[in-house]
Amino acid sequence: MNDVHAMPPRAANLGLERVGVSRVKKPLTVQRPGRVVTLTATFSVSVDLPPDRKGSDLSRNAELLAELVDERLGDPVPSLEALCESIARSLLQKHPSARRSCVTAEADYFLRRGISAERSSFEDYLLIAGAFGERASDGTITSHRSIGAEAVGMTTCPCAMESCRALLEKEYPGLARAEFTEVPVVTHNQRNRTRLFLEPPDDSEVEADTLIGLIEAAQSSPTFAILKRGDEARVVLDAHRRPRFVEDVVRELLASVPAAFPRLPEATKVRAESTSEESIHKYDVVAAHEISLGALRARPSA
Amino acid sequence: MNDVHAMPPRAANLGLERVGVSRVKKPLTVQRPGRVVTLTATFSVSVDLPPDRKGSDLSRNAELLAELVDERLGDPVPSLEALCESIARSLLQKHPSARRSCVTAEADYFLRRGISAERSSFEDYLLIAGAFGERASDGTITSHRSIGAEAVGMTTCPCAMESCRALLEKEYPGLARAEFTEVPVVTHNQRNRTRLFLEPPDDSEVEADTLIGLIEAAQSSPTFAILKRGDEARVVLDAHRRPRFVEDVVRELLASVPAAFPRLPEATKVRAESTSEESIHKYDVVAAHEISLGALRARPSA
Amino acid sequence: MNDVHAMPPRAANLGLERVGVSRVKKPLTVQRPGRVVTLTATFSVSVDLPPDRKGSDLSRNAELLAELVDERLGDPVPSLEALCESIARSLLQKHPSARRSCVTAEADYFLRRGISAERSSFEDYLLIAGAFGERASDGTITSHRSIGAEAVGMTTCPCAMESCRALLEKEYPGLARAEFTEVPVVTHNQRNRTRLFLEPPDDSEVEADTLIGLIEAAQSSPTFAILKRGDEARVVLDAHRRPRFVEDVVRELLASVPAAFPRLPEATKVRAESTSEESIHKYDVVAAHEISLGALRARPSA
Amino acid sequence: MNDVHAMPPRAANLGLERVGVSRVKKPLTVQRPGRVVTLTATFSVSVDLPPDRKGSDLSRNAELLAELVDERLGDPVPSLEALCESIARSLLQKHPSARRSCVTAEADYFLRRGISAERSSFEDYLLIAGAFGERASDGTITSHRSIGAEAVGMTTCPCAMESCRALLEKEYPGLARAEFTEVPVVTHNQRNRTRLFLEPPDDSEVEADTLIGLIEAAQSSPTFAILKRGDEARVVLDAHRRPRFVEDVVRELLASVPAAFPRLPEATKVRAESTSEESIHKYDVVAAHEISLGALRARPSA
Repeated sequence: MNDVHAMPPRAANLGLERVGVSRVKKPLTVQRPGRVVTLTATFSVSVDLPPDRKGSDLSRNAELLAELVDERLGDPVPSLEALCESIARSLLQKHPSARRSCVTAEADYFLRRGISAERSSFEDYLLIAGAFGERASDGTITSHRSIGAEAVGMTTCPCAMESCRALLEKEYPGLARAEFTEVPVVTHNQRNRTRLFLEPPDDSEVEADTLIGLIEAAQSSPTFAILKRGDEARVVLDAHRRPRFVEDVVRELLASVPAAFPRLPEATKVRAESTSEESIHKYDVVAAHEISLGALRARPSA
Repeated sequence: MNDVHAMPPRAANLGLERVGVSRVKKPLTVQRPGRVVTLTATFSVSVDLPPDRKGSDLSRNAELLAELVDERLGDPVPSLEALCESIARSLLQKHPSARRSCVTAEADYFLRRGISAERSSFEDYLLIAGAFGERASDGTITSHRSIGAEAVGMTTCPCAMESCRALLEKEYPGLARAEFTEVPVVTHNQRNRTRLFLEPPDDSEVEADTLIGLIEAAQSSPTFAILKRGDEARVVLDAHRRPRFVEDVVRELLASVPAAFPRLPEATKVRAESTSEESIHKYDVVAAHEISLGALRARPSA
Repeated sequence: MNDVHAMPPRAANLGLERVGVSRVKKPLTVQRPGRVVTLTATFSVSVDLPPDRKGSDLSRNAELLAELVDERLGDPVPSLEALCESIARSLLQKHPSARRSCVTAEADYFLRRGISAERSSFEDYLLIAGAFGERASDGTITSHRSIGAEAVGMTTCPCAMESCRALLEKEYPGLARAEFTEVPVVTHNQRNRTRLFLEPPDDSEVEADTLIGLIEAAQSSPTFAILKRGDEARVVLDAHRRPRFVEDVVRELLASVPAAFPRLPEATKVRAESTSEESIHKYDVVAAHEISLGALRARPSA
Repeated sequence: MNDVHAMPPRAANLGLERVGVSRVKKPLTVQRPGRVVTLTATFSVSVDLPPDRKGSDLSRNAELLAELVDERLGDPVPSLEALCESIARSLLQKHPSARRSCVTAEADYFLRRGISAERSSFEDYLLIAGAFGERASDGTITSHRSIGAEAVGMTTCPCAMESCRALLEKEYPGLARAEFTEVPVVTHNQRNRTRLFLEPPDDSEVEADTLIGLIEAAQSSPTFAILKRGDEARVVLDAHRRPRFVEDVVRELLASVPAAFPRLPEATKVRAESTSEESIHKYDVVAAHEISLGALRARPSA
């Protein structure tokens, strides 16, 4: 029987940058500080394909995922990105003609959070891990990782707050101006969905929980599943005391990264993306920026 | 060649309530007051299947859609639901062994809206039409329609507003109590997605634009694509002067139906569903209710 | 401070059938035969609302989910539907003015499967659980469950197979007719997504793994993550030896339920839905049917 | 009243590469050869933000979309990408402090297609347009476009076909070997979703209908809404006579571009992405490649 994958392709002399499988769902266990967590992750796994091979033989990718994920369910991995990296390296061993590999994985993730200890519960976040393998001309395999997370929080609009303040002053001329500057003024607020990615050039570790903490600190307020009435007021007031555009969320978030990761290399890529699902419009507003950690550190302070 | 569809099924003596095609996308034109509108609709089209037939012969459904939708693109239909009803009736002619047919269609829909005439633009809504055909034992075909629409607007939470008022009074004891009752107080606000469906038992017409108007009137405020700064303040203040739970949106919406449709029959089914994408939580809150127009009319006023 | 939820609504005299929270994600552990499984489930949780209350006080729902799901993460529940039922009952205790409660939950679910023991890995399925609580006029709370599952498999079209046979006979007159009836003939095949739900009227247990097994047996073939070349041929040939319409999948599936659940009550509702993502069309084809287990059992055999 | 957007940001000295609005839905009309087509497009529109401005003032983006899309609904644009380009240029005029702009738009699109003239109907495709504006240091604004399309068709797996041939030869030793090489052999086939993008560096025009034609020619077969039984057999046999991996689809597609666009500049970027929603697995397989048109042309023929 012919090995169809190894045959030369009809449309010859054209290598492909990426061939693989996507949307592969798997359960896996991760060792987190003091606990083992089970995640349901969705993987995409690919390698490049040289010009002289017709097919990439994708059954190897499914086998590899079974070996490295299914068979190790009882043996927790240190992190989702560590697992991706071991898959990225093994892909290059399973595909001897490939030079580059790429693995991404996303998983719902939960942290116990709350406005107070007795009102805490699991809040849901998203982990977004990646790993990239490369085979040098001498056969050496190198790899590095991307660690990302998404947190949903709240933003309150600083611009509408100013406009409301001006309108209220006009509508209520009898009220002292001071009262509108001290007391939080109404504005539109909404769900904000923000992602932060760090991609160190080497094998530096990045803790995803730290990313989530930075995102929540950059939004107008984190949000919580359990809020009794006084708690709701507290969250609403806090958020109105920190009005933020998506632009602010991205900037505050990027600006907070150097202090949180003092030992990561200068060449670490840092990427932030923020979407506010505007309550006052039917569309979303978005901001995004990518910068090296070195450039972030070198930035003159405000 | 055997007609496989007409053969008896292996698992015999079991009719099926619904067999059809779904996610069929089609362009079509609709005559609206004073203008012709082109919609991109997604159809689902089905009939029942008697116990003695193996297959429904679904190529007839695709042919019928081509005849009734594609061939009439240049000849606007009166409404999306009128088109669905003509498909539902024709389905029963194309499938002589079927007794019931069901057609649903969804389409993005645009109305020119704005906070003022010079700030108007197209706002997007969703039309959700349905039609149901039935063949009586004497062969007579009857049918009726469901007309639905979704509008996205804003809700401001009345409960968090009260809690914030109480907390502000405590935090700012120097401020006069009156000022917090007169001036709108901060609360969480968010995107609200509300649907209203009317299903008259007969051939009564329902104008979808009216449904959209009722939904927007039931929310704390409609939302707009174009808002300059003063406009934003106006929308935010209006919304804070009409704080509404999803429960309120559904009730206000249902309560507004009788006056808007004085001539529809008592047996008309009325259904409202509202979802607030809470800014203060990661989850949504929902309310829904279905009631006959007769029961709505008979309801003692507040 | 006023209890806003307990106030009478402005649009009075209108109770609501359903008010709740939706898209609440939670991790939980389930005891399965011989193993504990962690699921990431998405819950919707609602109760009805009497005419005289403005709001349902949804913070109770979030608290309840934290108590019954988060706090018991270390203490596996017997099944997703058992957890839903305990939530449905507790909802009626937390909401003393409600008479009905409804809980639904969906979760990715994995079973070790394979074409052979050495080629097995985790295949992904979907669990879809529900529970419904009711408070009688004497205060007694009753409840029952719905247990559902979705499995993705393959269908091969029996009609196109016949047409291809006829066309091949015409194109290759030299080939013996017998060869086309014995050897599987080409046809279009595709992903098929089928759901089966059982809703017993009482506290009968239904094993979700059994539902998944029945679905896979009703499709032309189950599908597998790991298939070496000979395995692929085996699955393709098996599927071509069992060509099935979506109509066939639903009928075979329903017909298989009585033997698998001999002890469930007659009044158990059985619902099957099947979607084939046709390779030969851009749209899907669907079939669905609901019937009581009693009627299924009473059905004369073929 | 303060212009909050023009204030300096708190987290200073950090420009942002992209700030804008996304998921803005709009109806628009496009002049196609011999007909005017109405599309419902979803736009994303953004500019960069200099370090010294707090906000991008996104109300300008919504105003611009209203001016360039809503106000011109009666005046068809030459193409979706031409409209994107005019928005990208105007964005730089509306945002004097921005240096780069980016506009993307997606829209369902229909072409009349059929296995024969009397069996034709509208098949649905996706248009994916982009435009990129840049302001040089001397103030000159330049721009260019990306034109993309997606078509859904069918792929039949060449590898499983070989394996099935081998297995059939073993199972039916009495059948002549020739019969299995001449007559199409069973394999798995499935929906294939392929995208092709061309991004010329200048103002060259690219016809989206041509891209769709190239994609359909690269798949094992196009698919059709209306197929009577003989037609189904024809499509199935055609597809089985052109078995193709996703790898093949991408390569054949890229290889077909030079002949179709003989006058486009060498620096035109060409990108192809193909996803097969495998009928034999629960996951998808994907291939993608990007290359300059110059490199494609220089490629030695097979």
